[in-house]
Amino acid sequence: MEILSDQQAMQLALDWAEKGLTTTTPNPRVGCILVKNNQVIGAGFTQPAGQAHAEVQALRDAQSRGNDVRGATAYVTLEPCSHFGRTPPCADALIEAGIERVVAAILDPNPQVAGRGLAKLKAAGVAVQSPLLEAAAYEMNIGFFKRMRTGLPWVRMKAAASLDGKTALHNNQSQWITGPEARADGHHWRARACAILTGIGTLLEDDPQLTVRAFPVTRQPKRIIVDSKLQTPITAKALQDGGALIVHAQRNPEREAELIAAGAECVYLPNAHGKVDLPELMRELGRREINELHIEAGSKLNGSLIREGCVDELLVYLAPSLLGDARGMFELPALTDLRDIQQLSFHQVTQIGADIRLLARFKKHA
Amino acid sequence: MEILSDQQAMQLALDWAEKGLTTTTPNPRVGCILVKNNQVIGAGFTQPAGQAHAEVQALRDAQSRGNDVRGATAYVTLEPCSHFGRTPPCADALIEAGIERVVAAILDPNPQVAGRGLAKLKAAGVAVQSPLLEAAAYEMNIGFFKRMRTGLPWVRMKAAASLDGKTALHNNQSQWITGPEARADGHHWRARACAILTGIGTLLEDDPQLTVRAFPVTRQPKRIIVDSKLQTPITAKALQDGGALIVHAQRNPEREAELIAAGAECVYLPNAHGKVDLPELMRELGRREINELHIEAGSKLNGSLIREGCVDELLVYLAPSLLGDARGMFELPALTDLRDIQQLSFHQVTQIGADIRLLARFKKHA
Repeated sequence: MEILSDQQAMQLALDWAEKGLTTTTPNPRVGCILVKNNQVIGAGFTQPAGQAHAEVQALRDAQSRGNDVRGATAYVTLEPCSHFGRTPPCADALIEAGIERVVAAILDPNPQVAGRGLAKLKAAGVAVQSPLLEAAAYEMNIGFFKRMRTGLPWVRMKAAASLDGKTALHNNQSQWITGPEARADGHHWRARACAILTGIGTLLEDDPQLTVRAFPVTRQPKRIIVDSKLQTPITAKALQDGGALIVHAQRNPEREAELIAAGAECVYLPNAHGKVDLPELMRELGRREINELHIEAGSKLNGSLIREGCVDELLVYLAPSLLGDARGMFELPALTDLRDIQQLSFHQVTQIGADIRLLARFKKHA
Repeated sequence: MEILSDQQAMQLALDWAEKGLTTTTPNPRVGCILVKNNQVIGAGFTQPAGQAHAEVQALRDAQSRGNDVRGATAYVTLEPCSHFGRTPPCADALIEAGIERVVAAILDPNPQVAGRGLAKLKAAGVAVQSPLLEAAAYEMNIGFFKRMRTGLPWVRMKAAASLDGKTALHNNQSQWITGPEARADGHHWRARACAILTGIGTLLEDDPQLTVRAFPVTRQPKRIIVDSKLQTPITAKALQDGGALIVHAQRNPEREAELIAAGAECVYLPNAHGKVDLPELMRELGRREINELHIEAGSKLNGSLIREGCVDELLVYLAPSLLGDARGMFELPALTDLRDIQQLSFHQVTQIGADIRLLARFKKHA
């Protein structure tokens, strides 16, 4: 029989973590597998907030299958928690169950945990090891890590353009630049996000639903509309089935009342120029426990968010076509010196149908 | 001992063909290996025009190593020629040497060969097989194939841009958009081309040498300058060490004489608008046996070449940066209908240092 290595076991745990990709928010996606005598005797992943964490799910799974977990090794994709949050500490559950060894992919960035989970296990005589496959474990919860460390969400801006970087003709025709595979792939990124943000320009032009529809989900991301002058129509599709957060910069009690009646929440966040204070909005979303923010907006709001340093990565779908003189992805001012260029690094390049998907991260956030 | 399969043997022959990538023009790059008793007993690739073809090189190689080629199988990346060109027919050489079987990756598109090479071998009692790894063999000589079939070169347009598709600031700063690896890679594509074309705008702005300098080569591609009004200075770097072909659309005997004295050749190819007739230029380059034409020009000439249907593929290096409001890669007119979009397909995507290299082919040429 082949021996299951620590690395293979952790990869399995990461596969389990991924099952919670669209459901655990605001909690991190965590997977746990229990191994004894070279056999996987239990596995689990974090349930929606307030319900069981991965470790408890794995213990329950082993028990329900009649497996004795005493002496087993637990592989967890994030350090087990040591504090009472919405659920009791997982470190305690592992100790009580008689787990002999815990391998954690990465330490929990939550200041309430941050090494204390492993310390607690060690103090109880459990062998502990970390990190293992740390980079993959970090990527799995990139938003949770950023929010715990900075109070801000991880901000991912999606754009789809032709090979010459154009998103739409000057007359706004833009529906079919990328192919059906790229559009479906885009819904996967929507689904993993805690919230989707757009601007009033896109809302008035396209009346988008801002929901995940390419496949079934049990949770829709929160919808956020940057709408300085409160121009959102109460009939907007983005307000249906659960409302949206409308962020504005001008007071208008009448319109606010209308929009609230239509199910929306209005938040007043002006900057000195009468526009929405975008960096403050990011802090507000961090306070609201948004881990990953997905942006699908027009070139103007995209440009403002980039200029104001709010964006961590670009998710760009490039179609194999040339649009020529047309609208770009990001409205950014002309530079006079190349040293002032916005620098990123390519994180991932993938072919999606006939198109190419690029994931590029801003250098300052790297 | 492991058996060398036909496919592995042909892949070896393709590796040998590649050794001639920058030297065989206007002949195709061809590789040949001879296999007997599961051993490679001889190998060769096409030498510069007028010298030996791959088959003869492989036969000589076997002989010089004391190997008896009678009864061997020859793997050739292109159908052996049957006609007297600059050298005697390779099919005859293989028959005379007593080769028992010939596997050809692809048929020769040269109307003087086109199946007759294999027919000749067969008539002489040699077993023949084709195609094998046909797609790779076609790619190796994509320019030769196009010229033999259409009389036109394969036209590859190189561009380097930021992720938002910009090549230079409005003040022309552009030197460092892509990294050193991408710039060195660009020289490999220059080296395999029969000719490099640029426009008078780029020539006056950058005074490029249009040579391969990133590594040693025994042959520099021909240089072609699209210069409607004969504005090329006689001191232009592109005229040094062997001159260039200057294509113009206005007569000026004095300037022509000056440029000819400086080593250039002037060709008058006007269209009805007093500009260079670009499609006619492509036909002229085909007549001059240019297989692969490499274009490094500014957005204006790039746009004209694309609009006039002269371009087969784009070789685009994308840097992980955003330039904002700046110059694009291709000056193309605004469309009013997305159905008029220039459609391509991605042929290859590769990371080159910190940048990404995209090879995209126009659909009409696919």
